[in-house]
Amino acid sequence: MTINLKNFLSDKNKMSKIGEFQNLKQIEGLEMSSVSADLYGNGRDDLTLFYFSKGANYATVTTSSSIVSETITWNESSHKKLIKALMVNTKNANTFTGKQGKESLDIIAKNLSRILTLKESKSDKGTSETVKIKDLIFASTGVIGEQFPVEKVKDTLPELVKRLKTEHNKLFWLKVASGMMTTDTKPKVAYEELLIGDELVKLCGIAKGSGMIAPNLATMLSFIFTNADISSNLLKSLLKKAVANTFNAITVDSDQSTNDMVSIFSTKAIKIGQNLSLNDKITKKFELSLKKLCLNLAQQIVVDGEGAKKFLTVRVINGKSLSSAKNVAFSIANSPLVKTAVGGEDPNWGRIAMGIGKSGEEVDLKKLKIKLGDFIVAENGKISDSYNEEKLKEYMKWDAITIEVNLKMGNESFECYTCDFNHDYIDINTDYRN
Amino acid sequence: MTINLKNFLSDKNKMSKIGEFQNLKQIEGLEMSSVSADLYGNGRDDLTLFYFSKGANYATVTTSSSIVSETITWNESSHKKLIKALMVNTKNANTFTGKQGKESLDIIAKNLSRILTLKESKSDKGTSETVKIKDLIFASTGVIGEQFPVEKVKDTLPELVKRLKTEHNKLFWLKVASGMMTTDTKPKVAYEELLIGDELVKLCGIAKGSGMIAPNLATMLSFIFTNADISSNLLKSLLKKAVANTFNAITVDSDQSTNDMVSIFSTKAIKIGQNLSLNDKITKKFELSLKKLCLNLAQQIVVDGEGAKKFLTVRVINGKSLSSAKNVAFSIANSPLVKTAVGGEDPNWGRIAMGIGKSGEEVDLKKLKIKLGDFIVAENGKISDSYNEEKLKEYMKWDAITIEVNLKMGNESFECYTCDFNHDYIDINTDYRN
Repeated sequence: MTINLKNFLSDKNKMSKIGEFQNLKQIEGLEMSSVSADLYGNGRDDLTLFYFSKGANYATVTTSSSIVSETITWNESSHKKLIKALMVNTKNANTFTGKQGKESLDIIAKNLSRILTLKESKSDKGTSETVKIKDLIFASTGVIGEQFPVEKVKDTLPELVKRLKTEHNKLFWLKVASGMMTTDTKPKVAYEELLIGDELVKLCGIAKGSGMIAPNLATMLSFIFTNADISSNLLKSLLKKAVANTFNAITVDSDQSTNDMVSIFSTKAIKIGQNLSLNDKITKKFELSLKKLCLNLAQQIVVDGEGAKKFLTVRVINGKSLSSAKNVAFSIANSPLVKTAVGGEDPNWGRIAMGIGKSGEEVDLKKLKIKLGDFIVAENGKISDSYNEEKLKEYMKWDAITIEVNLKMGNESFECYTCDFNHDYIDINTDYRN
Repeated sequence: MTINLKNFLSDKNKMSKIGEFQNLKQIEGLEMSSVSADLYGNGRDDLTLFYFSKGANYATVTTSSSIVSETITWNESSHKKLIKALMVNTKNANTFTGKQGKESLDIIAKNLSRILTLKESKSDKGTSETVKIKDLIFASTGVIGEQFPVEKVKDTLPELVKRLKTEHNKLFWLKVASGMMTTDTKPKVAYEELLIGDELVKLCGIAKGSGMIAPNLATMLSFIFTNADISSNLLKSLLKKAVANTFNAITVDSDQSTNDMVSIFSTKAIKIGQNLSLNDKITKKFELSLKKLCLNLAQQIVVDGEGAKKFLTVRVINGKSLSSAKNVAFSIANSPLVKTAVGGEDPNWGRIAMGIGKSGEEVDLKKLKIKLGDFIVAENGKISDSYNEEKLKEYMKWDAITIEVNLKMGNESFECYTCDFNHDYIDINTDYRN
């Protein structure tokens, strides 16, 4: 059963429902495992492997930060269109690790390709394909600037490969998603399915992220898997479009990590059409499911935002341009004043006005309309005649709040998602290491 | 005695010294008063008047917010080069007040011009000049979206004019600066003087600001007065230059008010040269004092930032361009993660790296050098070989912390100032109105 996010908008307890009822299934052609290399010193899972027995088409979108992880640089160093495996480690971001970080990846890739080649030679197929170093990609999350724990990871690779499972139910998906958490309080998983002809197309997604931080720098990572045979180029176009209004529409503290990465993999198990293009009906159907999946995961990240107690939707409508609507939306969503007001359940619309203003975007004060939920708080250049402080205070107690700004300057809209700012955020981020 | 800000940089207790020892003096041609119109309901001063008996040259720099106060719109509605008076009110920002806000200003201006004309006719000069509505400017700070208290203000105008004083010592400057506070915990005043020929040129400045907020929206306001005769055009150029590295180089929470305004007034009492241009030696000398004064006031605003316990200087050197250096500096200074780490006395340089990266500016990781105070924490693409956690922890206990980022990409530098982020900020901004 999948969730219908639209139903949440009028829901008083939306927040607690985001991410509920995900019944994830097995993706043909994908094997997964998650083990502990004892990077945290407490035995928790910290290494995760995704292995594609017949290879996978692949597309990825990475951080726009100008300082990136060695891992991301390594992935980009060769053009991989068909890959065999993705390995994810937590605890160490492999960022600002210089030569040691790069060499660690070389060592791990060399060993992993050897072990996977061995596995293939023993497989039922009887073939003995070679898994090459360039068939592998990596993702890292955790502390930056610390030496990469190459020995511990290397020593755990045989176990990681040995534990690969072809069957995975919801619990196993949760285990795998847990293996890449840092300060996340819960694993994030999502599932969509759709019929194309007689074929059941499945999309499974996992994510980690909880404020772009702690321990030192966490990371927004998300990996999506589908059994539908879609080319890498088309996957790239679809992923970019899906990310724009989902993972790129969320903010916890306006900070951005050096390791952010969203990837999609196609195991090619199900044929859904030949030479598909972006505008084909089949593609559109798949795109819709992909967007729903991404939005679900993105919203789960916000809900798990450090200290978050409120889910905040900022919707800007009738902007002159998309970039204008987006700037206004993020200007409000990133404002510590708006976020503390939401945390304090205070219908302080003056701060929303401030957030609109500081975006620098052209605004016509006389046209502007600001709503909190269904309540108009300001219009015609002044406080609304129907303004009712008591009703608004009641509304602000909901766990999901919607701010709507109608610019009345054009037809473009943008919606983004964030959480409140409160003492728990300060606790998590001030007291670490003390 | 004036303070030398440079001395502060190596000072363990810089923060407590900012704004100390300001011995403000009288400015010839300026009369001031500060009274209560009981806008707060507790009798505190809330109206301030600056009156120039012989008129004043004048220049102003206002908020770049696209939503501005009715007051700012009113000031800009006529081109005033020589003005007679500035009136400031606190408690109500006169923003999002629509027609009522604009009409309030018309009523107040009409009454104030009448009362000031009456005062002039009674003056020693015996002349009876008319003070016109267009000779007046206004500034407002406080809550937005509430009806402007026009009656209370209007009724207090006779008292406000009656209390005008030509003599003002430091205490009187403090009273006047207090009359425009909102959530500020102390008034902000600064003084500079310099000799030009045999003439003593004086600059007195006052400011208010403490986080761009509460009660609902506070405001950064600053007014600077000099006895030196400088044309309005030259004042405008000088003020713009001074603001760039002072008031525009501070941030408390990245939020910006609808009412921000910095103005400079010349009473023309002292002649310092004819047809002065920006490049004249005399102008340069004056400019230096003006910059020092502005920097002093700007830093006092940061020190009084909501909840601030630490003063943070972010210095970015050797940038490819000024805008690049500035973007990197503000990206770090506005990062809630950097600010909470400073609050927690945690030498968490990974967050500084993140701040640099998320600016999106081009960075060469191998060249980049990051320092905390005198300690190099990262260089050559990795943690510094001299990295010493214990020494850094000791340094982070200082009340003024300097982050230096050497981009090694060019010759442009920018320095900005901010404070830490902590529980007090959340308290001040969450619990208001509850």
